[in-house]
Amino acid sequence: MSSKHERKVAIVGATGVAGQQFVAALQNHPWFRITTLAASERSANKSYGDALRAPNGAVRWYCDEEPSPAVLALPVKDAAHLDASDADIVFTAVESDAAREIEPRLAKHVPVFSTASAFRYEADVPIAVPGVNLEHLDLVETQRRDRGWKGFVVPLPNCTTMGMVVTLKPLLDAFGVKQVCMTSMQGLSGAGRSPGVAALDVLDNIIPYIVGEEEKVAKETGKILGRVQAGTIAPHGALVAATCTRANVREGHTEAVQVQLERETTLERVRATFAEFGREFCARNLPSAPRRMIILHDDPFRPQPRLDREADGGMATSVGRLRLDAAGLRYVLVSHNTKMGAAKGAVLTAEHMVDAGKI
Amino acid sequence: MSSKHERKVAIVGATGVAGQQFVAALQNHPWFRITTLAASERSANKSYGDALRAPNGAVRWYCDEEPSPAVLALPVKDAAHLDASDADIVFTAVESDAAREIEPRLAKHVPVFSTASAFRYEADVPIAVPGVNLEHLDLVETQRRDRGWKGFVVPLPNCTTMGMVVTLKPLLDAFGVKQVCMTSMQGLSGAGRSPGVAALDVLDNIIPYIVGEEEKVAKETGKILGRVQAGTIAPHGALVAATCTRANVREGHTEAVQVQLERETTLERVRATFAEFGREFCARNLPSAPRRMIILHDDPFRPQPRLDREADGGMATSVGRLRLDAAGLRYVLVSHNTKMGAAKGAVLTAEHMVDAGKI
Amino acid sequence: MSSKHERKVAIVGATGVAGQQFVAALQNHPWFRITTLAASERSANKSYGDALRAPNGAVRWYCDEEPSPAVLALPVKDAAHLDASDADIVFTAVESDAAREIEPRLAKHVPVFSTASAFRYEADVPIAVPGVNLEHLDLVETQRRDRGWKGFVVPLPNCTTMGMVVTLKPLLDAFGVKQVCMTSMQGLSGAGRSPGVAALDVLDNIIPYIVGEEEKVAKETGKILGRVQAGTIAPHGALVAATCTRANVREGHTEAVQVQLERETTLERVRATFAEFGREFCARNLPSAPRRMIILHDDPFRPQPRLDREADGGMATSVGRLRLDAAGLRYVLVSHNTKMGAAKGAVLTAEHMVDAGKI
Amino acid sequence: MSSKHERKVAIVGATGVAGQQFVAALQNHPWFRITTLAASERSANKSYGDALRAPNGAVRWYCDEEPSPAVLALPVKDAAHLDASDADIVFTAVESDAAREIEPRLAKHVPVFSTASAFRYEADVPIAVPGVNLEHLDLVETQRRDRGWKGFVVPLPNCTTMGMVVTLKPLLDAFGVKQVCMTSMQGLSGAGRSPGVAALDVLDNIIPYIVGEEEKVAKETGKILGRVQAGTIAPHGALVAATCTRANVREGHTEAVQVQLERETTLERVRATFAEFGREFCARNLPSAPRRMIILHDDPFRPQPRLDREADGGMATSVGRLRLDAAGLRYVLVSHNTKMGAAKGAVLTAEHMVDAGKI
Repeated sequence: MSSKHERKVAIVGATGVAGQQFVAALQNHPWFRITTLAASERSANKSYGDALRAPNGAVRWYCDEEPSPAVLALPVKDAAHLDASDADIVFTAVESDAAREIEPRLAKHVPVFSTASAFRYEADVPIAVPGVNLEHLDLVETQRRDRGWKGFVVPLPNCTTMGMVVTLKPLLDAFGVKQVCMTSMQGLSGAGRSPGVAALDVLDNIIPYIVGEEEKVAKETGKILGRVQAGTIAPHGALVAATCTRANVREGHTEAVQVQLERETTLERVRATFAEFGREFCARNLPSAPRRMIILHDDPFRPQPRLDREADGGMATSVGRLRLDAAGLRYVLVSHNTKMGAAKGAVLTAEHMVDAGKI
Repeated sequence: MSSKHERKVAIVGATGVAGQQFVAALQNHPWFRITTLAASERSANKSYGDALRAPNGAVRWYCDEEPSPAVLALPVKDAAHLDASDADIVFTAVESDAAREIEPRLAKHVPVFSTASAFRYEADVPIAVPGVNLEHLDLVETQRRDRGWKGFVVPLPNCTTMGMVVTLKPLLDAFGVKQVCMTSMQGLSGAGRSPGVAALDVLDNIIPYIVGEEEKVAKETGKILGRVQAGTIAPHGALVAATCTRANVREGHTEAVQVQLERETTLERVRATFAEFGREFCARNLPSAPRRMIILHDDPFRPQPRLDREADGGMATSVGRLRLDAAGLRYVLVSHNTKMGAAKGAVLTAEHMVDAGKI
Repeated sequence: MSSKHERKVAIVGATGVAGQQFVAALQNHPWFRITTLAASERSANKSYGDALRAPNGAVRWYCDEEPSPAVLALPVKDAAHLDASDADIVFTAVESDAAREIEPRLAKHVPVFSTASAFRYEADVPIAVPGVNLEHLDLVETQRRDRGWKGFVVPLPNCTTMGMVVTLKPLLDAFGVKQVCMTSMQGLSGAGRSPGVAALDVLDNIIPYIVGEEEKVAKETGKILGRVQAGTIAPHGALVAATCTRANVREGHTEAVQVQLERETTLERVRATFAEFGREFCARNLPSAPRRMIILHDDPFRPQPRLDREADGGMATSVGRLRLDAAGLRYVLVSHNTKMGAAKGAVLTAEHMVDAGKI
Repeated sequence: MSSKHERKVAIVGATGVAGQQFVAALQNHPWFRITTLAASERSANKSYGDALRAPNGAVRWYCDEEPSPAVLALPVKDAAHLDASDADIVFTAVESDAAREIEPRLAKHVPVFSTASAFRYEADVPIAVPGVNLEHLDLVETQRRDRGWKGFVVPLPNCTTMGMVVTLKPLLDAFGVKQVCMTSMQGLSGAGRSPGVAALDVLDNIIPYIVGEEEKVAKETGKILGRVQAGTIAPHGALVAATCTRANVREGHTEAVQVQLERETTLERVRATFAEFGREFCARNLPSAPRRMIILHDDPFRPQPRLDREADGGMATSVGRLRLDAAGLRYVLVSHNTKMGAAKGAVLTAEHMVDAGKI
């Protein structure tokens, strides 16, 4: 195996919004080097630069960081026939149906970190949230053993689950969590680029429904907050009631969260708990890690997606509007849906496993 | 007193967003005739058309219905020195501080219907919601008696309270309400026009706080759902926990509501309860009344503010995304914040009182 | 042939943005009755209501006027195999490639009014602009004769050409036109709905290019302003230099136009010329005609697409910011791209031909 | 005088949008150190952090770069009584009326670089455009002599003029310029923050007029492209016909430009001329200078304000859509209105004068 500084990585689904974020997160990475890009048949055998073009000829690139000339020149392979045996790590950002076919094939040989939902709900598969439930990653040994794989599949959660579990974990540990009620106002990039959300539909509007999202949030939150028991995960039993809406915001998911805690507490203790959370994990200084897992705002007009989505490289969860009363604890959070909530969160998970000597 | 078809009405605060909606609602009204427009000193002694101009010369008009030439030619009086004794009814749409000074002065002589919060929380003042709590309007007799007024002050609730109480009232009557958790995504027009919300602040963004809004929603909901007892209103005790945010939507407030009901029920019964609500009131066919108080959507992508805010002339509350589980009843509603939620709601309240022979 | 009040019409491409505008313009039409809806194979054999659903289940309807229950229940036929022989008139709103195949097939039997570009540039085909060049419609006789059709094809111009030629025609007649320089800021609906413009691309942005648009504007303007000579149209020779951009505006094309006139004039005469234009045509009171072809604004902050696109039912062209100096005449116009600029303009053209006894 | 690395700078009008950009451009500057912040009386005697708060309590900060804690703690002085005698350089970003009073007072002692229009049109005042007309800066000696000042006033042009003159200068030098026709689609930040453009006015809209802007663009372009003669500037005589509109874009001005050149040329030569422009100036590597004055795009979908406004630190002008025909040369440009077009452009001008030993 190559040293920490020479891991070769493949990105599958490299042309989509989340795939582009993988490229942005990895093109100047100190440990990882992009050696393979793959996408659907339509993009195969083009250069990455050409594959980013829409039918009308426009290059559609959605990260603030520009792609490097070297990356733009890389050839795009057909994901359906990808042999990633020369990669050390694969990152996938494909639709769930494609993931169900592609990921097990690759996992036979290589560790796969995925933003797709295909394997999230299988018994031997952890849903990785850096700084929150890294002990769940031990399940990859079960995968290897039971499935006969040399690699494994580690999916990240849905981008809407991400910000919420980062805030629920410290609450759970400190005060217990009985029930969660959450309303999200989600950014456009979460819907991808082909075609994504039509401007005609969302301009001057809120769309009150995102297919399948609320069920994912409920199920994934339970699993992420659960405990490893006997080679699988016993989900936490708190009821999670989500209403997921789409707002006319480019990036960043805003979530209004109400949590009914098991034990009484005070706002001061909640603040301290949030501020303290993840210190140890952040202190490891992994390349993609935030300086703080949670950034607390006293200004009641924060967090705002435009101002806070990029906090700590898009990897911190910004929290404000803390209120505590008979209805429970309430707050508003902003989390970057394609950085911490997808590609860069997956990269951080891989960094953790490399750093821990597990790959 | 003039007949039903000849009431002379004055609009105070006629140049603001809500004031403009009063003009739109009244300029072709079958019973009411605009005889007086008043606004702040800055607008006084201009024609209404001139008073609508911003410092840079732009006419700032925000209703879809154009103002008639006759209205544009009306002179604007100084609200601070208005003598409305020749009007039969006054509608006010001014800031709370101004209302505290102006409204009692006018109420000595004339009924005043107000969109301001100044008097909402006084013991002898009802908060009127047409079709919901019209029996509260009997409190105006207490006002007349105790304050020695010939008129009275009847405020409407905050625009954010409005949509929610229209849906809570039938739930309360049918199933009882224990607790309400609501997240709003409010339209821009609710913040008025001088200066209103700056585009720089809200473009590509959600603003997670509106000063004072959440307290108003909680307090007003309790009062509106309360009972008249001994000449005042005993508020309903359900806890109302609101998070109010501003979205980049021109008009229409979207609210994600979770209600914990006192008694068990089914989605079917909830649907029937919503559909049935307000039949009698709507059947009176008051000029500004909606055909239905609540419009139920089965399509999970509805209601949307752009598509649903104008339903039944901006006077119906559109409800969708009905879900019922251990967390309670959840739904999303859209209500027009400057029509049902402000000016046109006040006009409808006045129509009710005229129709009922009370003014 | 049926009487004026009983024409049966078919709409081909009924599910797209322009097709929906045909439905809105025709569902309560005093002379025409929708008897047939057709669309692509994907929509065929569904009800119109079902065919409007996107893959995620959302009904995507973009007109302010709601579709009637009767229309929603109509079956959608496959446009590729449509036999419209029972219709008196066909309106088409399909992509150019499809139009090239479908329209001649239908024109063998029935008059076809089209929003597609497929036949706009053929020698025996007029580009119809109601109130501007209706004498060009005589070319349909050439079509009938040379192509052996009982019907004909009459395309409308590109939506961006429309507003401009409405203003150029009176200038040409009164002062002569040497050269035109135009920059458009076009609304989103012009790009259609499948997929249309992605919100991710246009939020907080201007897109400086629309494929093929500038060439169409140049070529069509010349043809529309040209003269019928010897059974074809000799285009007007003025150079038309357009820069077409996409703005984050739902509907309505805004165009900043600079015209170099052949003969000297004054602003007053230009104003009078614009105000006078189309009087006779409008006086015929065709059902879809505007009251005025051109609405002049003195307020320099007008026209604005949100305020002016719906003027006279979306059929008037709003003009403001008139300036005349050594650089020529300059003004800004707003024209509704899917009403006057597409579907309703085609309906108005058909009304003219019915009224003139030509169909 | 202090060394290059220790200039003390004052920012007057520090709380507005352009003032904030001064703070962003100067807070980590290698040569300059912010020692004084001043603003209107309303902000005086507050910390800078407190002075940024709107009446409703929200901190209104509009740069992507966060203000440093040190800057937020600086006291804000009253600009009306500022004595900047301890500063080496003053940067002002105030309204024109205030500038007319403040700037001469400060210029008695200190060099003043201004974004206000107050002195732009005076005979002994240059309008500085870095890389374009730096030889005009010699006029400051005339100011010093005739006005008896130790300092001087050097204004930058209007933000809309800026991008255009950067592209006109190389065209003028290479081919001559006869006439310019320009339509701008300007970003919101150009209108400032108090109150700036209301979201209600600009959402789903284009506003076709900006008071005074077109006259400024015409007059300033002539002066900037003119020649120093006998201690003043003889403006270039090309006619500049501008139409300035406001679009719903946060930052970045997009301009569609048509130039009639004096001498024939080819697109290739135009490209080469643009690419070559400013090489020498950029090679001086002044801290705020762009790497290239003009960035040329072949992709017809560029430049876009969201993608290109930050090019080279917001200091490059991005140009695309180059076309050359009988109507002249046409292109679209994007320029950052508060960086190159205001604050950072002024800082770059000051850097030039420091580097050239003139202050």
